[in-house]
Amino acid sequence: MSGVLHGVGLGPGDPELMTLRAHRLIAGAGVIAYPAPDSGESFARSIAAGSIPQGVEEIPIVIPMRAERFPAQAVYDQAAGALAERLRAGRDVVVLCEGDPFFYGSFMYLFGRLAGEFRCEITPGVSSMAAATAAAARPLCARNEVLSVLPGTLPEDELEARLAAGGAFAILKVGRRLPRLRAAIEAAGLGEGAMYVGHASLERQVVAPLAEAPQDAPYFSMILVPGRDPHVG
Amino acid sequence: MSGVLHGVGLGPGDPELMTLRAHRLIAGAGVIAYPAPDSGESFARSIAAGSIPQGVEEIPIVIPMRAERFPAQAVYDQAAGALAERLRAGRDVVVLCEGDPFFYGSFMYLFGRLAGEFRCEITPGVSSMAAATAAAARPLCARNEVLSVLPGTLPEDELEARLAAGGAFAILKVGRRLPRLRAAIEAAGLGEGAMYVGHASLERQVVAPLAEAPQDAPYFSMILVPGRDPHVG
Ligand SMILES: C[S@@+](CC[C@H](N)C(=O)[O-])C[C@H]1O[C@@H](n2cnc3c(N)ncnc32)[C@H](O)[C@@H]1O
Ligand SMILES: C[S@@+](CC[C@H](N)C(=O)[O-])C[C@H]1O[C@@H](n2cnc3c(N)ncnc32)[C@H](O)[C@@H]1O
Repeated sequence: MSGVLHGVGLGPGDPELMTLRAHRLIAGAGVIAYPAPDSGESFARSIAAGSIPQGVEEIPIVIPMRAERFPAQAVYDQAAGALAERLRAGRDVVVLCEGDPFFYGSFMYLFGRLAGEFRCEITPGVSSMAAATAAAARPLCARNEVLSVLPGTLPEDELEARLAAGGAFAILKVGRRLPRLRAAIEAAGLGEGAMYVGHASLERQVVAPLAEAPQDAPYFSMILVPGRDPHVG
Repeated sequence: MSGVLHGVGLGPGDPELMTLRAHRLIAGAGVIAYPAPDSGESFARSIAAGSIPQGVEEIPIVIPMRAERFPAQAVYDQAAGALAERLRAGRDVVVLCEGDPFFYGSFMYLFGRLAGEFRCEITPGVSSMAAATAAAARPLCARNEVLSVLPGTLPEDELEARLAAGGAFAILKVGRRLPRLRAAIEAAGLGEGAMYVGHASLERQVVAPLAEAPQDAPYFSMILVPGRDPHVG
């Protein structure tokens, strides 16, 4: 019998924001895999580090970190092959996923290659959006309000159209696009109340009104435009 | 010195989907408060039950459960008063919140009344959206795709306009509106791939293609329309 492929959400970075189930699955794992940069530490592994048992087999999936380029298909093909070998041998594999696995997560590239052949179980996690909202200490969306999650990589005209439609917004993948995104938000009349959150839940967390956000935002940053539902009181 | 008001996300229902921090805060609490129906068990309390210590002071906030009616302002005024008393006496108060506190959560009604006077700390939680996506075993959104979270209570024309804009969708507050929502999704050409998830992460969880969803959906149910990003492979 084949093993089970586990996609395990780790939350946004603070190890205490892992779920009890994520902790249990990692602590009991025989094989774990995780995305890793070509040099330096894997962020996912660093979140889970305190739960990883001795003697586990570790499979780093090295993704060339050319920011936001089309993910290297060959890397995922090869990684999927390596995991499939373990799964066919009847071993469960735990894949560590930052945040929630299916919320803009790269786990989908393994899932897409392996879910046809193997049993897959997803452990949902606290998303970076939830962590950023908590850090900003402001309700994100309420009642009858639409929440739009916008990748900062959207073409200019779609970004404008989405912002014009109203509601609450969370903008991911900010990085160097911050000035452009800020300009669009201000042009849409949404600058007031908009917040910048970098490295939510980590020690180096930064929370600021969008107008005072740092010029060079890191990859792990987000812009929040809380909804304007007037009935919060 | 005043106590701290904690808004603690409990995740979608399975107690194992609480975070380690939620567990720690609840296990160490002296005062806990939670929404409760006028008769029967509090859902939030039932998620946290295994972590609640003996001898803790419990403050149920009884919300008349006339489905989705305007929340009783008087109830929140009174509850805020009761919590303020404890906080002024220097006691921390843990408010139990289903899912993530600031993702359409009723915690905002207490936060809106108390955050001006007291220190507030939010512990983000796994949202019902993340849990439903995990249950549906399908990536929700990827890469350059917009995710729209739509309350099922939206007026018909706004619902149609939002669906027409494309991307991925999560529709909350389904309940009796299911037939109307399904019709709108099918009219928008999004029926294929759309999923229904009831009671995500609980034993009574139901996952089905939207076309086969039960006629009378419960309050704790959601419709997911995963994005169509072609590059999942
Ligand atoms: C590829 S997406 C992955 C999202 C992840 N699966 C989740 O559930 O949060 C990466 C984006 O998430 C956001 N992000 C992830 N972790 C973050 C953190 N700790 N603080 C702020 N933003 C974060 C950033 O916008 C980043 O560009
Ligand atoms: C007032 S909102 C609260 C959302 C919550 N704060 C969260 O983070 O998930 C209530 C709606 O969330 C959804 N919901 C909550 N728990 C759910 C569950 N276990 N399964 C499916 N949907 C759920 C339903 O659509 C419900 O109508």
